[in-house]
Amino acid sequence: MKSQVPACRLQRCQWWYQTQSGTGLRASLTLGCSPRLQGVPVSPGCAADRPPQPASARTDIRDCSVDPPYLPPTAINTTAQLTALRDIMRAHSVDAYIVPSTDAHMSEYIAERDSRLGWLTGFTGSAGTGVVTQDKAALWTDSRYWTQAERQLDCNWELQRTSQWGAGWGATAVPVGGNISLDPFLFSIDTWNSYRQALHGSGRTLLPIENNLVDQVWGDQRPPPASSEIYTLPAAFTGSSWQEKVAGIRQQMEQHVRRPTAVLLSGLEETAWLFNLRGHDIPYNPVFYSYTLLTNTSISLFVDEMRLSAAARQSLRADCPGPLCVELQEYGQTRAHLQHYAQGNVTIWLGTEYTTYGLYGVIPQEKLLEDSYSPVMLAKAVKNPKEQELLRAAHVRDAVAVIQYLLWLEKMVPQGQVDEFSGAQHIDTLRQAQEHNRGPSFQSISASGLNAALAHYSPSNGSSRKLSVDEMYLSDTGGQYLDGTTDITRTVHWGVPTPLQKEAYTRVLMGNIDLSRLVFPPNTAGRMVESFARRALWDVGLNYGHGTGHGIGNFLSVHEWPVGFQSNNVPLAAGMFTSIEPGYYRDGEFGIRIEDVALVVNAQTEKPFLTFEVVSLVPYDRNLINLSLLSPEQIRYLNTYYETIRARVGPELQRQRLDEEYRWLQRNTEPFPLGSAATTTTATTILGTLTSLLPTLFTGLQA
Amino acid sequence: MKSQVPACRLQRCQWWYQTQSGTGLRASLTLGCSPRLQGVPVSPGCAADRPPQPASARTDIRDCSVDPPYLPPTAINTTAQLTALRDIMRAHSVDAYIVPSTDAHMSEYIAERDSRLGWLTGFTGSAGTGVVTQDKAALWTDSRYWTQAERQLDCNWELQRTSQWGAGWGATAVPVGGNISLDPFLFSIDTWNSYRQALHGSGRTLLPIENNLVDQVWGDQRPPPASSEIYTLPAAFTGSSWQEKVAGIRQQMEQHVRRPTAVLLSGLEETAWLFNLRGHDIPYNPVFYSYTLLTNTSISLFVDEMRLSAAARQSLRADCPGPLCVELQEYGQTRAHLQHYAQGNVTIWLGTEYTTYGLYGVIPQEKLLEDSYSPVMLAKAVKNPKEQELLRAAHVRDAVAVIQYLLWLEKMVPQGQVDEFSGAQHIDTLRQAQEHNRGPSFQSISASGLNAALAHYSPSNGSSRKLSVDEMYLSDTGGQYLDGTTDITRTVHWGVPTPLQKEAYTRVLMGNIDLSRLVFPPNTAGRMVESFARRALWDVGLNYGHGTGHGIGNFLSVHEWPVGFQSNNVPLAAGMFTSIEPGYYRDGEFGIRIEDVALVVNAQTEKPFLTFEVVSLVPYDRNLINLSLLSPEQIRYLNTYYETIRARVGPELQRQRLDEEYRWLQRNTEPFPLGSAATTTTATTILGTLTSLLPTLFTGLQA
Repeated sequence: MKSQVPACRLQRCQWWYQTQSGTGLRASLTLGCSPRLQGVPVSPGCAADRPPQPASARTDIRDCSVDPPYLPPTAINTTAQLTALRDIMRAHSVDAYIVPSTDAHMSEYIAERDSRLGWLTGFTGSAGTGVVTQDKAALWTDSRYWTQAERQLDCNWELQRTSQWGAGWGATAVPVGGNISLDPFLFSIDTWNSYRQALHGSGRTLLPIENNLVDQVWGDQRPPPASSEIYTLPAAFTGSSWQEKVAGIRQQMEQHVRRPTAVLLSGLEETAWLFNLRGHDIPYNPVFYSYTLLTNTSISLFVDEMRLSAAARQSLRADCPGPLCVELQEYGQTRAHLQHYAQGNVTIWLGTEYTTYGLYGVIPQEKLLEDSYSPVMLAKAVKNPKEQELLRAAHVRDAVAVIQYLLWLEKMVPQGQVDEFSGAQHIDTLRQAQEHNRGPSFQSISASGLNAALAHYSPSNGSSRKLSVDEMYLSDTGGQYLDGTTDITRTVHWGVPTPLQKEAYTRVLMGNIDLSRLVFPPNTAGRMVESFARRALWDVGLNYGHGTGHGIGNFLSVHEWPVGFQSNNVPLAAGMFTSIEPGYYRDGEFGIRIEDVALVVNAQTEKPFLTFEVVSLVPYDRNLINLSLLSPEQIRYLNTYYETIRARVGPELQRQRLDEEYRWLQRNTEPFPLGSAATTTTATTILGTLTSLLPTLFTGLQA
Repeated sequence: MKSQVPACRLQRCQWWYQTQSGTGLRASLTLGCSPRLQGVPVSPGCAADRPPQPASARTDIRDCSVDPPYLPPTAINTTAQLTALRDIMRAHSVDAYIVPSTDAHMSEYIAERDSRLGWLTGFTGSAGTGVVTQDKAALWTDSRYWTQAERQLDCNWELQRTSQWGAGWGATAVPVGGNISLDPFLFSIDTWNSYRQALHGSGRTLLPIENNLVDQVWGDQRPPPASSEIYTLPAAFTGSSWQEKVAGIRQQMEQHVRRPTAVLLSGLEETAWLFNLRGHDIPYNPVFYSYTLLTNTSISLFVDEMRLSAAARQSLRADCPGPLCVELQEYGQTRAHLQHYAQGNVTIWLGTEYTTYGLYGVIPQEKLLEDSYSPVMLAKAVKNPKEQELLRAAHVRDAVAVIQYLLWLEKMVPQGQVDEFSGAQHIDTLRQAQEHNRGPSFQSISASGLNAALAHYSPSNGSSRKLSVDEMYLSDTGGQYLDGTTDITRTVHWGVPTPLQKEAYTRVLMGNIDLSRLVFPPNTAGRMVESFARRALWDVGLNYGHGTGHGIGNFLSVHEWPVGFQSNNVPLAAGMFTSIEPGYYRDGEFGIRIEDVALVVNAQTEKPFLTFEVVSLVPYDRNLINLSLLSPEQIRYLNTYYETIRARVGPELQRQRLDEEYRWLQRNTEPFPLGSAATTTTATTILGTLTSLLPTLFTGLQA
């Protein structure tokens, strides 16, 4: 039985893209994982883009080519929903209607109430876009979800196997002069602009329809809004008071050449961070539905006031009236209030990646100050010393749970007692026992053998592979703690790995090390250096098809924008946290990923250069390391890292009286001998020569 | 005395920018080196951005703060030009007029006739933009040219020390409701759009004025148009016939989803390459003024027909009438012809980086197919096997000339007989003696000691530093050959370099090697991997403030777009040639650059990955290499490269009976001992520890 929580929604999503291709950010209709990813298309030919097996041999997916169509039991009959939607489209003179997979705040994870695409199509993947006309219905999704879509869609739906919206499809499905409509409160400004540009000159119009048509059809059946408590994060777990944060943003407003009078916040993490508030509205992310309009003289928080805890209300209202008094306004009144405010002599600063076109549209163009990200998003990205310490501390306790898990697996797997699902449950349980834990930060990825080759795989109860000493196992998990959010991947093998597995693992590790130990100048964009995590793989013609890392929050999102190594991330700066997670995936065989969270710190160079301090503190699997591939520098790095793990996690294990785990840690952090490193003779490699220089240099001679 | 050729115009220009900063291409008013560089601003803090010395102590630059203003003899009195321009501006109701440094083809180097900015301002730098109002005149230029501008400008001109056009300046200099005007035939579409965006909402209008106001004032004094012969490149030196090239482009048109009916070519290299024609209109670049409109049924070449050689005319008209007949049209009729063509049922494909707004404006929006670069520009970027062989062959003869020069310097410098200028003259002479040589491909950079710290320095006769065994010397030179264009930089020291010089040189070399030997996947953008050329410097907190390389042509431009490692370059593909040229510049002390040209080739990996084949074939200065810093792989790479040099250049030296040079080559390509490499103990470095990991990892412990 599949988990009731829509499993795929909970996968790691928006940063999960190849970033090596292209000539920069171009406006294009990428309807991928998230509107934030516009212009970062999946690279053609990347591993994840392989087509699924032919349908004929399979009973788990639909076959619409036979009469009657074959539908697996997992498919959802969507005829009633579609009929009702088409009726209402006719009533509104809508020729085509676009249904996205996100909510009004561009959230990565969404509440059931916002799962309009899932309700309409049956498809529960986290990335997709549906388009419906009177006689057609199509779903666009990327290669990660093709099989899932073929299992869940009925034959009302065409599956468009691309993350990019096809202008060609629009041209055939909608007559010239027709409209393609959407709910302007579900699309960011950037997405709206890219759609409009794609339709430019096509004779079709992009038309905003404010009353969501799916919601009208969904009616009473739509889940109710969140009603759980919104609470204050204790001062011990915040980097500064909300008043200090507000003052910092107001200072930026004053110092900006355009002198904005207000900042509009749409991202749920922005408001949660600014006011040190948290909620339970979205799975895995402790945020709550809200908007904020912070002006130079007032603060409006748009939220369901009844849901605020007494302490939260007290905190927000302590300085009323005055410039640090938070006026609580109805969530539903955001646009009306904004429209009224915009009538004055004002300039409103906003981020185009998180603000919807619906809100944007009520602000006159000359009163807008647009950046990709709001100043709050950028302030949140740089953790102050206290926030850094909180995140470091969370990672120490998180390491304890992961070490407990690795030791437990060592003992249990040989007995044949663990499968992917029970393993995932066990790590969740171990984390929950750690102080300040508030559950997992995303659905645990627990993948054995060939399942790990699907980089985004999560098991479900009942369809879960048994862990075995004969296979590699990949565990990508994380926790929410009051002091920080964690995310760590370890890949292990309890038996005898093949030389290929060992070399691939070692090369992934070399990439992790090479990026982690890199020294680089200030103002360097992550995308300029992420290749260091790939080079050891590239050397032998291997690669991975996803991004190299993403920002992470203080008890906020596990994927915290705009930090990371993608094209649309901001330059790295001291105080930012990012994951570093190269991998390698061999279809039908095995998958490897080694992920740590690292803090950007000042390097010990004469000029103020930067480097990383790794804060994830769990050793790598010695059984999978081919030492002869490592350089002396890489081995030295590993040994220093292991000293740090011992120094930071050892005492915590002792404090928690985890003696067996303590001994495990000592064993697994023994220094590696430098003499084993690759030195004057090239290490033997299974996959190829380390350098292809020799043959290519001589091409010229032969020609 | 300064050279009569405007020296700075001839410098390496457009790729010469730091590329590490920013979050991607953003539209911004970068009025830098070339409109092609929009959005690639000079990184704040890069070495080249240091302010010049205070004016007070100097007599070589103007001082407008005293009364009367102090002007050095190099300054040009521009009062007459400005008065006349302002008169004509009033007559046209122009509030502000923008004068760029490029021509109607976005050429990097321009003819005297197009040096409007130089004539108006006195400033002869290759990168700059002037803006004139009735009571103000300002010149924007980047840090490379600040001193030069202070020497050449009179006090009519404000110097704006930034490559970015200031919207703020516009706001104070032009009243609300006013216009900022320009000649639409001197600005690319991309530049026009970025200007318009910057003025958006400011209350000032961007206004195209077709009749160039500077030309009207310049009048009879303006140099005449080029009149020299345009000739056919012999078949031995072309990759394919022009008919084959045309057929290839037409095939692309047919296969394109938008089915364009025509391609418009504005870049001078595009037309020269397509028709296998060459001319002498622009210094160092063998091109001629022209446009091409290639339709699916016809070919229009807009050029001064009288200038075509008989053979050229014969080649173009051989298949007339018919689809491979080239119709020769007047250069001045380009726009009228295009406008007429655009009235039909057509779609015109063009590149927005090279096409001017003036031409673009006559094409209805729905008939446009816009890319950054035309299909001809992209086809030209990938050399076919014959073109590759031609370029390889040119580099063998070029290596002979450079080796002759290095040997000559070894003998002459200790005698105190060489200065920067005579050295530059000598290398030019040596190249001219090589078969198929057609002169230098840019003004030779020949810089001794502290002069080399100015990365773009070229000497002039009379103000030239003597070469000495006590200083480093940097030579960056290239040749035009009928079979290819070359560009190579070597840095040498004939005495005893300081440990710092040696370490810095070695780290630059390590960067050159690390990028040259990199294996990477197809479709990788150069900007994603150029950090490999920097890492050895970054490790000790050093860097360089310019790009890492640029494309190069077959007897065309030394800087051939859009290949290279910049943000706006296209992904690397097999068959492309690019320079690889890391450097290090120590203000007031020395400068280092090591530049080779490399061909992108298939790597010997299982999957079709790519790597580089270095085609520049001159050994590096052994006197400056600290072997203990190199890894075994780097030493192996060097030794293999040196074997290739011996195998390819040795026979040519013998054929030319250059016995002394042959012996020099053997000496200088002796294999390096592997035992000297950095192995288990970290090599001692002057500049700092190799890794800053240890101290930073422990930051957490101390906190």
